[in-house]
Amino acid sequence: MASIVFYTGNKVAQTTARRCLSVHLKAPPAARGALLPCPSAHSPSATLLPGSRWLSRGTGVRFMSHGSAGRSAAGRTRRGALVLGGAAAVTAAAAVAGLVANARHFQRAQMATRVAPAAEEKEQEGDILERCRGFMSAPVSDINVLQGRKEEMRTRMEMLIMETQAEFCKALQEVDGGTFKVDRWDRKEGGGGISCVMQDGKLFEKAGVNVSVVFGNLTEEAARQMRSRGKVMKGKDGKLPFCAMGVSSVIHPKNPHIPTVHFNYRYFEIEEEDGNKQWWFGGGTDLTPVYVNKDDAFHFHNTLKEACDKHHSQYYPDFKKWCDRYFYIRHRGETRGIGGIFFDDLDSPSQEEAFNFVKSCARTVVPCYLPIVHKHLNDPFTDEEKDWQQVRRGRYVEFNLVYDRGVKFGLATPGSRIESILMSLPLTARWEYMHEPAKGTLEAEMLEVLRNPKDWV
Amino acid sequence: MASIVFYTGNKVAQTTARRCLSVHLKAPPAARGALLPCPSAHSPSATLLPGSRWLSRGTGVRFMSHGSAGRSAAGRTRRGALVLGGAAAVTAAAAVAGLVANARHFQRAQMATRVAPAAEEKEQEGDILERCRGFMSAPVSDINVLQGRKEEMRTRMEMLIMETQAEFCKALQEVDGGTFKVDRWDRKEGGGGISCVMQDGKLFEKAGVNVSVVFGNLTEEAARQMRSRGKVMKGKDGKLPFCAMGVSSVIHPKNPHIPTVHFNYRYFEIEEEDGNKQWWFGGGTDLTPVYVNKDDAFHFHNTLKEACDKHHSQYYPDFKKWCDRYFYIRHRGETRGIGGIFFDDLDSPSQEEAFNFVKSCARTVVPCYLPIVHKHLNDPFTDEEKDWQQVRRGRYVEFNLVYDRGVKFGLATPGSRIESILMSLPLTARWEYMHEPAKGTLEAEMLEVLRNPKDWV
Repeated sequence: MASIVFYTGNKVAQTTARRCLSVHLKAPPAARGALLPCPSAHSPSATLLPGSRWLSRGTGVRFMSHGSAGRSAAGRTRRGALVLGGAAAVTAAAAVAGLVANARHFQRAQMATRVAPAAEEKEQEGDILERCRGFMSAPVSDINVLQGRKEEMRTRMEMLIMETQAEFCKALQEVDGGTFKVDRWDRKEGGGGISCVMQDGKLFEKAGVNVSVVFGNLTEEAARQMRSRGKVMKGKDGKLPFCAMGVSSVIHPKNPHIPTVHFNYRYFEIEEEDGNKQWWFGGGTDLTPVYVNKDDAFHFHNTLKEACDKHHSQYYPDFKKWCDRYFYIRHRGETRGIGGIFFDDLDSPSQEEAFNFVKSCARTVVPCYLPIVHKHLNDPFTDEEKDWQQVRRGRYVEFNLVYDRGVKFGLATPGSRIESILMSLPLTARWEYMHEPAKGTLEAEMLEVLRNPKDWV
Repeated sequence: MASIVFYTGNKVAQTTARRCLSVHLKAPPAARGALLPCPSAHSPSATLLPGSRWLSRGTGVRFMSHGSAGRSAAGRTRRGALVLGGAAAVTAAAAVAGLVANARHFQRAQMATRVAPAAEEKEQEGDILERCRGFMSAPVSDINVLQGRKEEMRTRMEMLIMETQAEFCKALQEVDGGTFKVDRWDRKEGGGGISCVMQDGKLFEKAGVNVSVVFGNLTEEAARQMRSRGKVMKGKDGKLPFCAMGVSSVIHPKNPHIPTVHFNYRYFEIEEEDGNKQWWFGGGTDLTPVYVNKDDAFHFHNTLKEACDKHHSQYYPDFKKWCDRYFYIRHRGETRGIGGIFFDDLDSPSQEEAFNFVKSCARTVVPCYLPIVHKHLNDPFTDEEKDWQQVRRGRYVEFNLVYDRGVKFGLATPGSRIESILMSLPLTARWEYMHEPAKGTLEAEMLEVLRNPKDWV
């Protein structure tokens, strides 16, 4: 079922004040949209750590298949724009439902693209019901509803995030031997989520993989903030239907030689009065080791780079830098970890290609991380190494509670599901007064890297 | 040397939009200022826990003696006012230097009182040099400078916070057997601090007692924010000299039956162009037990109440409520602990009386807390009780990183001393997904109290 498809874009696009995609966006629209290959279905690029079993391991989860994806509503697309306030409002709305793992840099004023409500062609992605059998739980949306609008992006994205959750959870369960606790929860205003948490497992101190799909209407207050450049976004009867969904995960292993990993992939839609939708994707995957391991770092970054390169050569370098900037603990002058990729407000070159890129990223989570877990699961460690891990865990908490926009919005929003928002916190953490590793130690080497982010590939 | 003095106030005051002191402030000025007794020197009210040795224990620290305190500049006082922005700016300036433990509610627009630069009478508080001998370190300010302006409030307050630090540290050292590590640090822009930290002691997991004294000029940006109602505060050549100082402490014991305690007492001054000073005090002491112990709670609150009642009958009830409101973890729907007192922007009925009240509070720290430590130091505890303590420690971290204004300002301000700001975090903490104690357990009893703050006296 896997096939290589090519996308010939001809969508009318504007140059936006984008920070990370500057090179990409400076290219003329024709060049940008033209001949960007989609990823083949099973091409994870983790040949760097030989012997890892994940390549051939069946997780019981069917991958989404690729058909000749429906491209485009070509020529019919128009661009609108949302300002910061509006984006923040949507973020807040998403955070209410726990869609939070790592929210966004609102680094440009214009960030969403209007698309026509229906795609011209339908993507063949397999039978919804059959695909659902591999999930950790039934999807958030009713299966009949999903089947009824299977060609819509919100359905395709919900299926992708459910699959990503299942694939990752099952890979972790297999290596740990433990079982994820699966919680379904509803959001009163619309939607809900599925939180999978494994706590105090054999390998993992705390592993959380969360899906949320929330929808409803933006409040009048939120709607007032939804201004495009030069004009107000108009909703029906003053209300703007929105939909926000994502998968997010943080894995804290016990062994200090296995790094913590975090990823989050998300999708937003806001519908205007005329039925056109503003939409964008965001996401990223990043690694937080306790000790520097150059091979691990190379494998992790290179796997991400290969996934990015299939879509645009500028994605990896831009999103790598964005990641280092985002996961920065300013008051410590250090990054949270060794980064990876981070992007937001992705609405180009087309909805289809943006989705395909996100799909590639989501499918890269297991090949990025599991080989590293397998490599180190039997590494011996000392009490001192465990202490240093605990100090780094403290820094993780500092970042998440002080800087992470998703967490901040979530905590500030009444009715949010706190347990899903704070799922990212480690089981245990430590704060030592004036902790500073001695020169020449492996701990000092780690700090040096966190203070001066490196290029790993 | 101890004597009871009475204050007959006749200062011209305005009714301010004060939240906590409403009853106090609604009384006519004459009634408010009249006949408020000052505290006697050694009247800690801890007869509630018999057998505690702190009453007679010499800590090697001389208490400040009380003379017939200089009251007033009566009639010459005028009121100005600072809006939130200005107060925030000063807080930020203080936080830069680690003067942070728990910052303030800016609950009213008007909060500072102008006083004439010199008091009419001088307080006899003993020889500066001799008093300094009992401190954990030389004061932040040069001793010659302190001696040269010994009658000024900034000197008297610096002596008080140094004494409070020493008294508390020595009492803790005596019961623990460990020794505080004393760090002196300088603030480039003016002033500095003394951080005393005992980590991983016999009884105390982490005990920090911090003094900071910072001064300099408010930046032009800060000065622009320093607006009184209806007029701009004017500085010489656009600069507003300020001074901010305080003592703050957080003690995290190992035994889950010994509660965590926190206190903070602080003083601010801003000088206007004409030499008059805006000034105010703030502070509080609060307790965070892991398990409910009604006797401890009564002792703690009653000791605070007795200290407050000497100054005004409305102080304890108002500041108790303020404390419950301030130390509220909104996203959890629970308070951090069982409270105590919290106040800010205290600029009435006179500088002298406000200082005497703060002095009473500061001297109540040891009698509030040490009897509880002594009572429980040999209490046995289980692994489960230790785990519950660690979960509560996690909540402590959440409050401090997410809500505490001092911490937030400190972290957001470049050049701040992070280690002093984050000294309040516990050595260890824990986050369990969906942790909820079973009904009928002692843990559930604690949560019930945190969700519905009680009156303890």
